[in-house]
Amino acid sequence: MPLPINSKDRKMPNPETLAPWRSPLARAIHRNRAVPFSRYFQLATVRADGWPANRTVVFRGFLAETNRLMVVSDRRSEKNEQISHSANVAVCWYFTKTREQFRLSGQITSVTADTPKAELTAAREQLWQNLSDSARAQFTWPQPKASRADAAAFNSPEADPQTPPAPFCLLLLDIEYVDHLELRGDPQNRCLYRKTDAVGDRSAAQSSAPKANQRWQVTQVNP
Amino acid sequence: MPLPINSKDRKMPNPETLAPWRSPLARAIHRNRAVPFSRYFQLATVRADGWPANRTVVFRGFLAETNRLMVVSDRRSEKNEQISHSANVAVCWYFTKTREQFRLSGQITSVTADTPKAELTAAREQLWQNLSDSARAQFTWPQPKASRADAAAFNSPEADPQTPPAPFCLLLLDIEYVDHLELRGDPQNRCLYRKTDAVGDRSAAQSSAPKANQRWQVTQVNP
Repeated sequence: MPLPINSKDRKMPNPETLAPWRSPLARAIHRNRAVPFSRYFQLATVRADGWPANRTVVFRGFLAETNRLMVVSDRRSEKNEQISHSANVAVCWYFTKTREQFRLSGQITSVTADTPKAELTAAREQLWQNLSDSARAQFTWPQPKASRADAAAFNSPEADPQTPPAPFCLLLLDIEYVDHLELRGDPQNRCLYRKTDAVGDRSAAQSSAPKANQRWQVTQVNP
Repeated sequence: MPLPINSKDRKMPNPETLAPWRSPLARAIHRNRAVPFSRYFQLATVRADGWPANRTVVFRGFLAETNRLMVVSDRRSEKNEQISHSANVAVCWYFTKTREQFRLSGQITSVTADTPKAELTAAREQLWQNLSDSARAQFTWPQPKASRADAAAFNSPEADPQTPPAPFCLLLLDIEYVDHLELRGDPQNRCLYRKTDAVGDRSAAQSSAPKANQRWQVTQVNP
């Protein structure tokens, strides 16, 4: 379930129309809500050397009044270096109970303590405060992927539950393209959503389908 | 479970030493065997325009006597165009019951009816014969991601259960790098496996750990 929206979030500026893919995605999240890992998805990035990288991350809801997905990350992790080189990412989100897949492509923005927009740093602080103690502790651990440190190095003093430490960052995903595949259909159903004013606008299959709104083109296609 | 190895497979040439990451991966597959979707993983590729792409595929076992993972695919799908441009891929395989993740990077090869190596086309045929009728039927469907065809277009005559059609291809993944993360540890455990004679050899964290064998460097690292 998306994180509760508090009054601070409600005041956030820059409201966007709810994108047409939000409704089927919300339905999938709801129908799979009893499955704890239904909030995990795979995030692919491109490394500086051109290789893809792929890992599981946890969906932390949408930034209030926007279509931006939220994920939290450790700035010391390799994905942060990758997105500083190329912000283009591809999410694959498979829902096991309803057997449907959302593939979402877009661009990622990192929010740290240095980000000048107050509403974004407030969202970052809120997510930090919502984490469990054990999740917060990971940000005090020694450098990820360095040679294994002694056990004592993992017993740092408890992290401040109010103020996020420097390594904690919020990643915001601006989605430009969604491919929704429902395996349960016979034949299966597949629907594409393309942002028509996307930064990385790409040629897509020609379609005579009407636009769902001014900004998204929605097309039923073969699975 | 890997597909049964028949006598034909056993005769395949080019045996490789079992890579050291095969043992923890086999254990994960075994411990999660009651979970049907534990054989699904996410495969990331890079598009010709530099964007990443990511989708769920089904693990079809290892090519006999090798460390090559097998996946089947429709040649008409976008991933086949992507891998013809760049063979570098990144797998993310999350096991929900044991809460562990394998990230595998390597290079992909496509096997079609035109592939000159008989042992590879034999493996392709075997996988086709092992598919369910409904899985085979998908290869007779109209062009993936084209505008939705009429229902009648999905009612082709039954596919030949013996001989794979042209769109059916076998993808072989040669792994060069594995990152195994066990979330259940406290702190979590993470182990890296790097092929020391890999095609796309990349700088990795310095390690004094002994090599598991001549071809793989194994390093315990911070999670």
